[in-house]
Amino acid sequence: MTTASTLPGAENLDRLEAVPAVAAVAPDAPLEAQTISRRAVGPRDVRIAIEYSGICHSDIHTARSEWSEAKYPLVVGHEIIGRVDAVGSDVTNFSIGDRVGVGCMSNSCHDCPACADGQEQECHNGTIMTYGGVDVDGSITQGGYSAATVIDERMVLRIPEALPADAAAPLLCAGITMYSPLRQWNAGPGTKVAIIGMGGLGHVGVKLAAAMGCEVTVLSQTTSKRSDSLRFGATEHYATGGDEGKENLKALRGSFDLIINTVSANLPMDAYVGLLRTRGVFVEIGLPIEKLSLSAFTLTHARRVLTGSLIGGIPETQEMLDFCAEHGVTAEIELISASEINAAYERVVGSDVRYRFVIDASTF
Amino acid sequence: MTTASTLPGAENLDRLEAVPAVAAVAPDAPLEAQTISRRAVGPRDVRIAIEYSGICHSDIHTARSEWSEAKYPLVVGHEIIGRVDAVGSDVTNFSIGDRVGVGCMSNSCHDCPACADGQEQECHNGTIMTYGGVDVDGSITQGGYSAATVIDERMVLRIPEALPADAAAPLLCAGITMYSPLRQWNAGPGTKVAIIGMGGLGHVGVKLAAAMGCEVTVLSQTTSKRSDSLRFGATEHYATGGDEGKENLKALRGSFDLIINTVSANLPMDAYVGLLRTRGVFVEIGLPIEKLSLSAFTLTHARRVLTGSLIGGIPETQEMLDFCAEHGVTAEIELISASEINAAYERVVGSDVRYRFVIDASTF
Repeated sequence: MTTASTLPGAENLDRLEAVPAVAAVAPDAPLEAQTISRRAVGPRDVRIAIEYSGICHSDIHTARSEWSEAKYPLVVGHEIIGRVDAVGSDVTNFSIGDRVGVGCMSNSCHDCPACADGQEQECHNGTIMTYGGVDVDGSITQGGYSAATVIDERMVLRIPEALPADAAAPLLCAGITMYSPLRQWNAGPGTKVAIIGMGGLGHVGVKLAAAMGCEVTVLSQTTSKRSDSLRFGATEHYATGGDEGKENLKALRGSFDLIINTVSANLPMDAYVGLLRTRGVFVEIGLPIEKLSLSAFTLTHARRVLTGSLIGGIPETQEMLDFCAEHGVTAEIELISASEINAAYERVVGSDVRYRFVIDASTF
Repeated sequence: MTTASTLPGAENLDRLEAVPAVAAVAPDAPLEAQTISRRAVGPRDVRIAIEYSGICHSDIHTARSEWSEAKYPLVVGHEIIGRVDAVGSDVTNFSIGDRVGVGCMSNSCHDCPACADGQEQECHNGTIMTYGGVDVDGSITQGGYSAATVIDERMVLRIPEALPADAAAPLLCAGITMYSPLRQWNAGPGTKVAIIGMGGLGHVGVKLAAAMGCEVTVLSQTTSKRSDSLRFGATEHYATGGDEGKENLKALRGSFDLIINTVSANLPMDAYVGLLRTRGVFVEIGLPIEKLSLSAFTLTHARRVLTGSLIGGIPETQEMLDFCAEHGVTAEIELISASEINAAYERVVGSDVRYRFVIDASTF
């Protein structure tokens, strides 16, 4: 794979051809090195020379058409960090050289009540996702496994220089996915938070909740990641698998103010939602294919709340990045080159990563 | 059945014997006239000469041992209104002659954080329910289908004189059950509220939500109660049964801020919870035996909230009664004598009541 030597200088705002990338080409085939093109820089666009791109499990589901049929070839990746190398004439918030990021969204209508409220992920006219979405010109959006991209400045985040760019990349998806429900449900000093699952999402959630002053408990299949949990700021780590797990769940009944479930496997919901105190809140982040099933009594007798959350809006994502810079929160990453993406996919599927792969974009 | 002529005067605080009542005697037998005794008036107790006692569907479930095995004979009834006819030496809030009420709770510990917070229904040491509960002296509590009762003043509600006592009785259970979730989730002017089910609970919910200034929609199996819905303050009433119902549910997707489900039948939850707008709240009041089943996507993509609610605390029940007096909210009732209770039960089970039976306690 080549370096980004084909990229033009900042004076050139024309369509970008021959951008090195890695693309999914079929549901069951390895990803391949390809070149793609990017649109000319429009008045409100920011062009980004990508430095790092995180690997999210959603990338794999999409690349393999596991959620819906992808339009191949498709470049996935929505945890993008780089430097601005060109700006359109009307861009006011960014200058060449700024370190910036792009998350799961590449555009929205900017006009509906949700967008006006900074909840672009709920855009009434349809959020345009960073990859696999239908862009305003009708083309299919191509994501971050590439050397450069062009994005409307309204969807671009400022990455504080205090954050290491590689370990900050996963914050653009995993970070906001955990930060938003913590903030929405007022997590703070004194809040007893449980995080179910200690993967890419969970480990960032532990760090964020601890930084907010919460008392954090990790609920994980085994105790193999216990020392990591404590290092990331948790005060407890309990196994939920096997007989020990059953005992733990029983003992922890009624313990938590806020539980965030990052696991997409189907859980026995009455046991898990029953871990909430009166008026506690259980947030689904994982998306199991089978339906959630629980007794109405689990909700009524203690007015427990079951809800879900999906990423977060642009203003809140910026707030999260600033919070992470202030509190030194980043993801634990394993930096890889573009040629290692397919092997990394296998390891993600096998839960063999602590805790997030990030691709060095200079290797595309 | 006799009148309450056996009741002593206010100067007598001794144990009350031979109080006329109607009791359940077996799961499958009609209720029978019996006499019961009530405890002597303790220092903090209020003795109440009962005037009216509402019939709640819970009474029937309990009398028939449908939820758990009842201890027979058992006097049910937890929508009680009467006049104070004796007070203990330490009673400060009530005087002889006051019109008062008792709802679902006859005592709690008054000491735990929930009680301190006015949430006696969530007492950490166990709320003592008005009937079928284990009282502080170990006896089984006996409810409101009787001529008199003795209750700790901390569980006694003041009934504003502006409320007609008979039509106010159902407020003690149905009223607070609907009022509490409306208040908890900030229903008010501009809130689009849907009430599922137009029975004893639902019709009071419509009146309360309308009095709070909400825009109220009734979702009922058929349109047979449509004119009632509109009369009670709803702006819309939609059928949910049959093909028309399916179309209605589809058309109403994403419409409501707050939905309160009073129906204990199992509903297709994705369709019903999907009626919520982004961040809308669905409150389960009914208690279906089968588990609730819904897709995580229904919750995550719009951050919808699924929760439950069970009656409410004493301070909030008093607030509800004062609100009802101010806004002229009462239940629609059919007044019956004690001898009609068994026939009324059959009609409640057959959904043949508009909308609540209330027993004239002078007929016990």
